[in-house]
Amino acid sequence: MPVITLTTDFGTRDGYVGAMKGVLSRLVTDQATAWRVVDLAHDIPRGDVAHAAWVVATACREFPKGSIHVVVVDPGVGGARRGVVLEAGGAYFVGPDNGVFAYLDVDRARVIENRRLMAEEVSATFHGRDVFAPVAAALAHHVDPATIGARAPVPELVALPWGPRAADEGRIVHVDHFGNLISDLPGAEAGAAIAIDGRRLPVLRTYEDVAPGELLAYVGSAKTVEIAVRDGRADRMLTAPRGTRVVPVPAGSEL
Amino acid sequence: MPVITLTTDFGTRDGYVGAMKGVLSRLVTDQATAWRVVDLAHDIPRGDVAHAAWVVATACREFPKGSIHVVVVDPGVGGARRGVVLEAGGAYFVGPDNGVFAYLDVDRARVIENRRLMAEEVSATFHGRDVFAPVAAALAHHVDPATIGARAPVPELVALPWGPRAADEGRIVHVDHFGNLISDLPGAEAGAAIAIDGRRLPVLRTYEDVAPGELLAYVGSAKTVEIAVRDGRADRMLTAPRGTRVVPVPAGSEL
Amino acid sequence: MPVITLTTDFGTRDGYVGAMKGVLSRLVTDQATAWRVVDLAHDIPRGDVAHAAWVVATACREFPKGSIHVVVVDPGVGGARRGVVLEAGGAYFVGPDNGVFAYLDVDRARVIENRRLMAEEVSATFHGRDVFAPVAAALAHHVDPATIGARAPVPELVALPWGPRAADEGRIVHVDHFGNLISDLPGAEAGAAIAIDGRRLPVLRTYEDVAPGELLAYVGSAKTVEIAVRDGRADRMLTAPRGTRVVPVPAGSEL
Repeated sequence: MPVITLTTDFGTRDGYVGAMKGVLSRLVTDQATAWRVVDLAHDIPRGDVAHAAWVVATACREFPKGSIHVVVVDPGVGGARRGVVLEAGGAYFVGPDNGVFAYLDVDRARVIENRRLMAEEVSATFHGRDVFAPVAAALAHHVDPATIGARAPVPELVALPWGPRAADEGRIVHVDHFGNLISDLPGAEAGAAIAIDGRRLPVLRTYEDVAPGELLAYVGSAKTVEIAVRDGRADRMLTAPRGTRVVPVPAGSEL
Repeated sequence: MPVITLTTDFGTRDGYVGAMKGVLSRLVTDQATAWRVVDLAHDIPRGDVAHAAWVVATACREFPKGSIHVVVVDPGVGGARRGVVLEAGGAYFVGPDNGVFAYLDVDRARVIENRRLMAEEVSATFHGRDVFAPVAAALAHHVDPATIGARAPVPELVALPWGPRAADEGRIVHVDHFGNLISDLPGAEAGAAIAIDGRRLPVLRTYEDVAPGELLAYVGSAKTVEIAVRDGRADRMLTAPRGTRVVPVPAGSEL
Repeated sequence: MPVITLTTDFGTRDGYVGAMKGVLSRLVTDQATAWRVVDLAHDIPRGDVAHAAWVVATACREFPKGSIHVVVVDPGVGGARRGVVLEAGGAYFVGPDNGVFAYLDVDRARVIENRRLMAEEVSATFHGRDVFAPVAAALAHHVDPATIGARAPVPELVALPWGPRAADEGRIVHVDHFGNLISDLPGAEAGAAIAIDGRRLPVLRTYEDVAPGELLAYVGSAKTVEIAVRDGRADRMLTAPRGTRVVPVPAGSEL
């Protein structure tokens, strides 16, 4: 039976995550599976769809085939946005169609329409409990995806506000807990140095390659270029919010 | 075998929650059950019994019958307050008798007295580890409740400082992670508008029914009236701490 | 099959903890065990090796024999520090050799050297995912410890910056979520009062033994002397960072 992961912006001081776990423990009747429910992250900044999108897209790579990832960062809950089930890389993803799955390479998508898969009474403000958790439980029981709802054309899924990456450069796509700036520039394209926010930084191996308090670039755990400060926070030393350009600098060239 | 949930104000930077999980993993010997232990919430504000009471009372509704909910928000630990086991809605609740279970409709209660159900050495400051987790493990093994301790008359259980709700109005009972103000006024009694903190707010369906930054009331996921700001925090826009009155305003009437 | 616990400074807003759980769910193939993975604490202050050391050393006492505790507070990741597997008190400990295991009474130690136990591609910055989680999975499958790597002499394991405790006194070793100051002075040596930061405090039983807002000392859940303020924070009332001396004061003596 598959793993079900939970990623939300619900925090850890209310009962919202607990309510979702309650639904799963009630609906997933197989003994072993019920507890194959794991917390990915619940302190996603409120309504920060792009933050959640990066977290899920990078963490999901490590899970076994058939895993079910539920993401509830859903400021438009109860409004016009659709609920969707996606298949990507052999896993299922369940949540709102608001950009939260934008970094995935989606194979197939369905709109969640089947009222019988949802809670008897569906609230207007808590689809994590009333729609997404029950649908995840149905997927754990190998429901036929055709019963979920109509196919949604993959190109019509909601994207993030920024467009696709330009050739030969990247953008900052995530700022992590440590203040590290994570780009989507593949390490293989980075070369010996990169430029960001008017600075040139050598691409090194790890934090200890610079002195404490100094900036460095390196190929991070997502195999893309990251910028960090050893024992410090790069997000405070650079002005480089998400969307900031990260450009390879060929050896010997001026900035 | 039943589910055991944990709700505490221990935070997630110390070993206190871990110690409770250790006790459960040691004492609950059935393989499957040992890991039917789930985190509800550990960032309950310190000593905030009323906050924990709302979290547990709302989240527990989703769990299967027979679940065991352990709550450790316990500023009076080691003092005169009693430890109790309650039955409510087909589930068990284990924790201090300090108001943390005040929102439950309790069927039966027992004082925790049986020294043999506790840790060999009981500390004066960590009954979560030494009393409540071991008692929860005993309940998971279907201990006869009569062995826990004497019956406690339900009306004598500690209540929250505020009295029962007056007819035809509610109070704010919880302020959540998003700054939403949650009342105990049933949605069915709310009508078309409510008054709070000198303002009249229409009762709408969901956040998108107002513009970003605007206040709204709606029937929330607990089926009671909530007040929120779309993409903002109602707790900063209103002066409405817990206990603030929430009053239905009949259509057409003045505030 | 054993329990695997996770302790990190990764926080709960990124995918790093999730990636480690993904690796474990992929590599630990036994159905029951895969989910015997429990979160100890993920909000360890960034890079605070001594904080993590205390958390793990105290929480691990409650877990059953054979448990596997993975600790990733690892500011030197990818640098010269070694990865190690330790045996202490019948449990395994996996993580960097940087002081994070300094409070354990270690029986045996091995350096993690076997490249075949690690991820196919090992990043320079995320050994939690690429080294420590896979090694924990191998231990869960009862790998022969000799295949992990060479024996490391226990006395050569990295210690914390402060030396061993002097006879007849203790030091503050941990400041917890509540602002309680936790020392390594055994309760049995404390007597009737202790001195800290120029004050004399009676050693009492629990918080309610003083008025709200007042300081007290007591023998805490780790069986060592702690200093707290009832319904307040001792770390704000005293100037007593980690390393501050805690000295027993015999009855009747002057401070």
